Amino acid sequence: MTSEFDLIARHFTRPTRHTVLGVGDDCAIVQPSARHALVVTTDMLVAGTHFLPDTDAERLGWKTAAVNISDLAAMGAQPRWITLALSLPAVDEHWIAALARGFAECSEAYGVDWIGGDTTRGPLNLCATAFGEVEVGGAIRRSGAHAGDDIWVSGWPGLAALGLRHLLDGTPLDADWRDTCVEALERPQPRVALGLALRGVARAMLDVSDGLAGDLAHILERSACGAVLDEAALPLAHAQAACGDAALAQRCVLAGGDDYELLFCAAPDKRDAITAISKQLDLPLSRIGTCVAPPGLQLRQRDGAIVALPPRGFDHFA
Amino acid sequence: MTSEFDLIARHFTRPTRHTVLGVGDDCAIVQPSARHALVVTTDMLVAGTHFLPDTDAERLGWKTAAVNISDLAAMGAQPRWITLALSLPAVDEHWIAALARGFAECSEAYGVDWIGGDTTRGPLNLCATAFGEVEVGGAIRRSGAHAGDDIWVSGWPGLAALGLRHLLDGTPLDADWRDTCVEALERPQPRVALGLALRGVARAMLDVSDGLAGDLAHILERSACGAVLDEAALPLAHAQAACGDAALAQRCVLAGGDDYELLFCAAPDKRDAITAISKQLDLPLSRIGTCVAPPGLQLRQRDGAIVALPPRGFDHFA
Repeated sequence: MTSEFDLIARHFTRPTRHTVLGVGDDCAIVQPSARHALVVTTDMLVAGTHFLPDTDAERLGWKTAAVNISDLAAMGAQPRWITLALSLPAVDEHWIAALARGFAECSEAYGVDWIGGDTTRGPLNLCATAFGEVEVGGAIRRSGAHAGDDIWVSGWPGLAALGLRHLLDGTPLDADWRDTCVEALERPQPRVALGLALRGVARAMLDVSDGLAGDLAHILERSACGAVLDEAALPLAHAQAACGDAALAQRCVLAGGDDYELLFCAAPDKRDAITAISKQLDLPLSRIGTCVAPPGLQLRQRDGAIVALPPRGFDHFA
Repeated sequence: MTSEFDLIARHFTRPTRHTVLGVGDDCAIVQPSARHALVVTTDMLVAGTHFLPDTDAERLGWKTAAVNISDLAAMGAQPRWITLALSLPAVDEHWIAALARGFAECSEAYGVDWIGGDTTRGPLNLCATAFGEVEVGGAIRRSGAHAGDDIWVSGWPGLAALGLRHLLDGTPLDADWRDTCVEALERPQPRVALGLALRGVARAMLDVSDGLAGDLAHILERSACGAVLDEAALPLAHAQAACGDAALAQRCVLAGGDDYELLFCAAPDKRDAITAISKQLDLPLSRIGTCVAPPGLQLRQRDGAIVALPPRGFDHFA
């Protein structure tokens, strides 16, 4: 019989690199860096709500770590530590081993020590809590955008949403793009290096998890300003190549969700610095719009007309 | 329609006292104290596994915070911050408000800022992560017990187990004790003041969540020693008064679970200090046994015979 303690010892106890005490006591112990603040985030992933029940366990483990690390990246923080609490309907050691492997692989890839957790029985649920460090006063919040700021987004949002549609209802994808889209959904790459590079450059930032327009609305609300996005500047090329449908591609880019790209606002005098960061990281950064004083989110269409853009972000209870 | 963001704003956003940035961004921001280490714990509570589905929501909120704060107490830490991620099958605002009230009430009672969380849809699951601070090197781990140390336990373990039996199968309890037992189960009081007072006094400690004997076995394993418990010294009086059954009382004290009392080991020369702490906190501290060199857990019966004591702690997958 496999006990809870066997499972923890066999699969959930990993070597740590910068941790005083890891798995095995009432608490883990870590030593925060002097003159740094700690940023903390927690995300819960539920079968059927956040992932398909047949999702590959290793990818699910990866994603559980990745979505938490992405929140650290969105503050401009250095990821440091993570915990994983999970409830499992039954013991399938092969599945658990794969889940733990994926979680550990993602954590290690971003320099994060997996320091503890909780293992219990119940409907499948994964709850990670991640900790990062920023120099005191250095965190990039959602509230710092000003009218006149440029709005930027990293990478190619929309691909994960296309991958999900493909898996859910068979939305056809170009054969060359199918794996890319499913991997964007199941194995997101948190933009940690970008978040760190944007300290002192971006003045408002978040990660796009619920859809670009909806998440931008959170920045606008916190910063008490509005925005006009420029349709011609949206990074549509990959989504359009993947699905061959311009309208669907645009919907997925603006409201798809699960992107884990960074959306940020910066003063126009930072354009050269941002272009240099893009080159250095070999990561496209698209300047997609401008913050404006009047509240609300609008889209400047290719024909020059300006239309209201409903945020359409994901809301678990709407 | 109540949105996820409305719920968070209305029920899960509380004033904080020592937090740089609370609910509402990608991460919370806190400022760890200089020359302190951070202790971190996470506990997941699942309906049907950790609590009865009809448990009062306010008490459930209290308990979710309390079991995490108890883990901080067990390290001798000062509790500081807590997050709550939860998945809910549906929106029942009355229920959610009560849950949040209980969680906030317990957090505030122990000086803990509720700094963030996650709200999602799914089978009822509550996952809190709590953070405390200890002076560097000051945490009381499970691994510090020595042969010859006294073994102590606080309060009156066993009452929560009696309360659970009463609710589950109608085990009869004395009318004067019924509420006390159910309250021990549903509204545990983490021993924070005791944990803090035991810094420099106890050299191994944990909180009793899975049953006294089973949890003691964790200390023994980490400390590479054994123990002999003294039946005549066990704090049986309250459990026995509650159920009127000496054998059941002893089973509940030794293997009941959900006690959240502190179990600790200290050198014999600390007896006076521990007695003084007991008086100061008005909290019974019972010296229930001795650590010994040979591994294993034994009980010295009232007749003087020494018998092996199976740990019988709670294991979610055994």
